[in-house]
Amino acid sequence: MNKIGICGAGLIGASWAIGFANAGYLSYVYDNNTNTVENFNKYFDDLLLDLKTIDPNINKDKIRSNIKLNCTIEQICENAVLIQESIVEDLKVKQDVYKELDRLTSKETILASSSSYLVISEISEFVEHKNRCINAHPALPPHVVPFVEVVGSQDTSEEIINKALTIYKKANYAAILVKKETEGFVLNRLQGALLNEAVRLHEGGFASMEDIDIALKHALGIRWAFMGPFEIMDLNAPEGIKDSFSRYRTGIQNLAKQQNTVPSYSDEYLDKLDKEQRQRLAYQDRPDRIKKRNQMIALIRKLKLELGEDV
Amino acid sequence: MNKIGICGAGLIGASWAIGFANAGYLSYVYDNNTNTVENFNKYFDDLLLDLKTIDPNINKDKIRSNIKLNCTIEQICENAVLIQESIVEDLKVKQDVYKELDRLTSKETILASSSSYLVISEISEFVEHKNRCINAHPALPPHVVPFVEVVGSQDTSEEIINKALTIYKKANYAAILVKKETEGFVLNRLQGALLNEAVRLHEGGFASMEDIDIALKHALGIRWAFMGPFEIMDLNAPEGIKDSFSRYRTGIQNLAKQQNTVPSYSDEYLDKLDKEQRQRLAYQDRPDRIKKRNQMIALIRKLKLELGEDV
Repeated sequence: MNKIGICGAGLIGASWAIGFANAGYLSYVYDNNTNTVENFNKYFDDLLLDLKTIDPNINKDKIRSNIKLNCTIEQICENAVLIQESIVEDLKVKQDVYKELDRLTSKETILASSSSYLVISEISEFVEHKNRCINAHPALPPHVVPFVEVVGSQDTSEEIINKALTIYKKANYAAILVKKETEGFVLNRLQGALLNEAVRLHEGGFASMEDIDIALKHALGIRWAFMGPFEIMDLNAPEGIKDSFSRYRTGIQNLAKQQNTVPSYSDEYLDKLDKEQRQRLAYQDRPDRIKKRNQMIALIRKLKLELGEDV
Repeated sequence: MNKIGICGAGLIGASWAIGFANAGYLSYVYDNNTNTVENFNKYFDDLLLDLKTIDPNINKDKIRSNIKLNCTIEQICENAVLIQESIVEDLKVKQDVYKELDRLTSKETILASSSSYLVISEISEFVEHKNRCINAHPALPPHVVPFVEVVGSQDTSEEIINKALTIYKKANYAAILVKKETEGFVLNRLQGALLNEAVRLHEGGFASMEDIDIALKHALGIRWAFMGPFEIMDLNAPEGIKDSFSRYRTGIQNLAKQQNTVPSYSDEYLDKLDKEQRQRLAYQDRPDRIKKRNQMIALIRKLKLELGEDV
């Protein structure tokens, strides 16, 4: 059983198809929009370029031959071990598709949604076999950042969760378990905490956008690229993590007390952000910056793999 | 005028001395503890190893010849353009040292404290010429992460701030301006926001320490190593940063509303953290992990420099 059904073939779906195909799975791709399936071939060449940066020996033809495009929804469902749904972020549309997926698949097939904000308890509300429904939310850009967070509803079985984690890990994703549904899961909650504080600092007149970007990329991010918060805290005091937190807890708590406001994100403030941004970064350079972003991520991943990291 | 006075020669002071010396400044080093000055030579070899990873052509002898150890406080003060103070984090001790530095230096010399939590308005409270006193807080580990955030008090002159930023940039530090004193400045405020949320997620039973670490290092940090929050948001929607924030603001605000609790950091919780940490990461491996951390940072910096980044 190594067939994955890819439901929705936009950029996210295409990344999943390639990720699974690269790990030896067969990716059967369905999209109700035939243009999207045609677009897939354009995505394919671009995404493979970045993957080649990570691993020059990657076999493009083999990956391509593991991907079957233009399938019907019935074809991706038949004998699939897992369906990865990455369609439009619309609850009603997802609920309808889930009913169909539930009907067309065997009862053992995992139904996984790439959604970040719509939670599986809502998406699977009208599904008969809720036990096999999960969120499996990737990071951006998904083809070079092989991360997924797996979340079940109260109805999801532990067996399905474990089976899903095993599949994603076999497909070389860094797969984590979010034990309870929570808005934003782990990834966006961590990201949101940092983003809100960046905006508080900027809106409060403490630093420019440029300088806040520098603090993240040239001081914090350079460690966070290969160590998480608990790994880092373990190294910040001689006796390890407890010693570190004991020393810093008053300071960290003081910050938490001050970081409890909700930024307005008013149109007026967003106009100000936009103006400051455009003075330093030209809008028309965005495609180049996206290319550079993907390239840098690929090079750091290559470095991490060379140094023995799992992904 | 290219003489820097290094006041306090622990790991932070040693890193500053080497950083300035590597950029062609003369680092005059004073520490009231002669053992600390002797330790300097041990630090020196270790720190240079990491710097050689970033730039194999680094000239160890030239750096060493730009560093004068065993100076008196009078000697580091005479004709120094800037005094970098990195002594013990004790307000009273710092206040006393600042009075002495104020007396011994010319009125143009910048008096910069490496302190992260003690702010310059307090440190310089009893100094006559407050206009030239600043915080200049580095990141950890300072020899491979050449970042500094410059903060003045209400009494600091704009001229001194600009002069300090110019000196740090000339010495190849990524120097940012924090426009107003605030607990934690920019670096620790961003870091604290993330750390508190990591602890909320762990303490609330949403994910394991291991999985939270994975989310940071394999998904978020890999981008944050070379792009700040505002650079990233610019790429997340077709029309740029305003478009991104308009799409995501409700979600980000919802998170801010939920991320307003202050974790307890109780001894009981820290024991739990410690136990979970020690089950996956051995205490005795910490020196190896510190070495690996420094090595990885050095390699990512090398990569960034090769790709045209400033630092």
